[in-house]
Amino acid sequence: MNIFTIKKKNKKKRRGEIKTAHGIVETPNLMVVATQGTIKAVSALDLIDWKSEFIIANTYHLYLRPGLEILKDAGGLHKFMNWNKTIFTDSGGYQVFSLAKLRKFKDDGIVFQSHIDGSRHIFTPENNVEMQRIIGGDVMMVLDECMEFPVTREYAKHSVERTVKWAKRAREKFLGTEPVYGYEQGQFGIIQGSIFADLRKYCADELVNIGFEGYAMGGVAIGESKDYIRDVVDMADEIMPEDKCRYLMGVGEEDDVRYAVENGFDIFDCVIPTRNARNGALFTKNGRLLIKNAKYKKDFSPVEDGCDCHLCKNYSKAYLHHLFKAGEMLGGILASEHNINYYMRLMKEIRDGI
Amino acid sequence: MNIFTIKKKNKKKRRGEIKTAHGIVETPNLMVVATQGTIKAVSALDLIDWKSEFIIANTYHLYLRPGLEILKDAGGLHKFMNWNKTIFTDSGGYQVFSLAKLRKFKDDGIVFQSHIDGSRHIFTPENNVEMQRIIGGDVMMVLDECMEFPVTREYAKHSVERTVKWAKRAREKFLGTEPVYGYEQGQFGIIQGSIFADLRKYCADELVNIGFEGYAMGGVAIGESKDYIRDVVDMADEIMPEDKCRYLMGVGEEDDVRYAVENGFDIFDCVIPTRNARNGALFTKNGRLLIKNAKYKKDFSPVEDGCDCHLCKNYSKAYLHHLFKAGEMLGGILASEHNINYYMRLMKEIRDGI
Repeated sequence: MNIFTIKKKNKKKRRGEIKTAHGIVETPNLMVVATQGTIKAVSALDLIDWKSEFIIANTYHLYLRPGLEILKDAGGLHKFMNWNKTIFTDSGGYQVFSLAKLRKFKDDGIVFQSHIDGSRHIFTPENNVEMQRIIGGDVMMVLDECMEFPVTREYAKHSVERTVKWAKRAREKFLGTEPVYGYEQGQFGIIQGSIFADLRKYCADELVNIGFEGYAMGGVAIGESKDYIRDVVDMADEIMPEDKCRYLMGVGEEDDVRYAVENGFDIFDCVIPTRNARNGALFTKNGRLLIKNAKYKKDFSPVEDGCDCHLCKNYSKAYLHHLFKAGEMLGGILASEHNINYYMRLMKEIRDGI
Repeated sequence: MNIFTIKKKNKKKRRGEIKTAHGIVETPNLMVVATQGTIKAVSALDLIDWKSEFIIANTYHLYLRPGLEILKDAGGLHKFMNWNKTIFTDSGGYQVFSLAKLRKFKDDGIVFQSHIDGSRHIFTPENNVEMQRIIGGDVMMVLDECMEFPVTREYAKHSVERTVKWAKRAREKFLGTEPVYGYEQGQFGIIQGSIFADLRKYCADELVNIGFEGYAMGGVAIGESKDYIRDVVDMADEIMPEDKCRYLMGVGEEDDVRYAVENGFDIFDCVIPTRNARNGALFTKNGRLLIKNAKYKKDFSPVEDGCDCHLCKNYSKAYLHHLFKAGEMLGGILASEHNINYYMRLMKEIRDGI
């Protein structure tokens, strides 16, 4: 199944589109994060007005809550959350490592305790595919091991071997099962290897041999410096197949996104637009604006001149400052809308520049 | 200045309209509460779609934050919060009693410490009028003493005398000052007297002698039983002038609103629609629905059939249940929108029934 087409190339930069059962996503583009089946503080339906074409949800979270039975009864996540455009689902491997309690590798998978109620669960490459069939995202990610940073080369080698083995098992399961809701799903492999170029290359080669609809660079932006992020980004064009969609996971700072696009990446996902918004950090064409700063107390101009979001069209910096100072939810809501809007404009500008 | 006209009477029930510089409000009606210059969890602009015609903000809160200087620079609260319809402002007397620290009566006013930073302030009947001139609401309330419940008759008598004295001073100040932003403002007196009918009557008579654009029944729904609320409501038609707007402060439970309309009240304000929403209690034509209840886990029908709010048109009970269980802000947002919508429909139905 081919879901990705390159429409235009400019040096390493690529302009393309992802086609799924739920629409076309122009790339380069960034997924707004809907971890628990909702964008934080924003009704997903509003995103449609802002030209957001895909979001990413998380298997770890959705498996624990609301649970697969409910998602199945709902007819899948699209129907449950009333989002009829493209959905990616992450396997939740990273969340098992970062959120779950008492996680333990076994040969066939990873045993963990829920961060919500301490209950015990196991994710295997196979049952994780079945979960993502039930969630029903248009593209699912394989279960991988996301290493911490830094790790020894020895640990990284061992971990990459497991990631490759798991990817093979996940692909077999994927090919041996059918979609639950009638429309096709795709599956992406995830390249790990920490900052070791040869391990990244080894991992990429193995995954390409297995064969996926797209490839992601994983284990990036988990606490390492920007230099390290860029080292990994620099490898991409060489080790990732040209004709498949290239996804840089978890990266979303504007300069990193721009750098990654220059180096041949197509898609991104990041909590930055919404998380920063809830903390009062707004993105504008003139840089980041920390609305809680006292200097905005009496600034009756909009957060960003010319922005057509609900915040900028209707409210002043002084009002938003007041909402944040007064602890009013509307502050986070308006700021989230603005930041998502900003990123959608940013990605369009990046696409148009190719 | 006459701001209220009765259009139709049916026994004690009245259908009328309040006319201010910012539009016409059909009555009976309920003000959505915008204590700090924002509806909680909802952009006030959305209220316009839901036929909400007036809101009430609070002098105590706005005086402390963002402060009068900013509101003045903004050109008043209407401009600050971008709400071009009618605004009432409460004097904040009740908030001084319920929120502020170390409040102490002096003859000329009440000294208190801010609940935010402990700073010392004084509200007098006069400076409170000046504050409400600067906030710029279309209708302001006088500074009164809102007694606790229960109080002795002796305390109540003493307190009512102070409320009357303060009302006289507030009216003098009001008549001796001009609006700050060019449009006319009105002023309502507040009838106190706890559950003592003769004190309520005394207070009402004195306030009518002073003369206001409207009259409120205050000190109700502050912890007493429904029977006591109704005892006070029962007095209204007898002691409140017929040709002026009658406002029952702080009351918003549906049965109480209906009862009060039957007994001749015109307007209400209450945090119930928004506060209950944030706690997961939704109002529907079939009664109150507690969305966190496990029975809604797999209920894929809307919260209220036939409701055209954003929640009911787009999402299921199961999804809203999930949002609340997962602690997602969108739950409170959608529920608030629904509850406000519900109350606006309720008030229209009540009006149409007169």
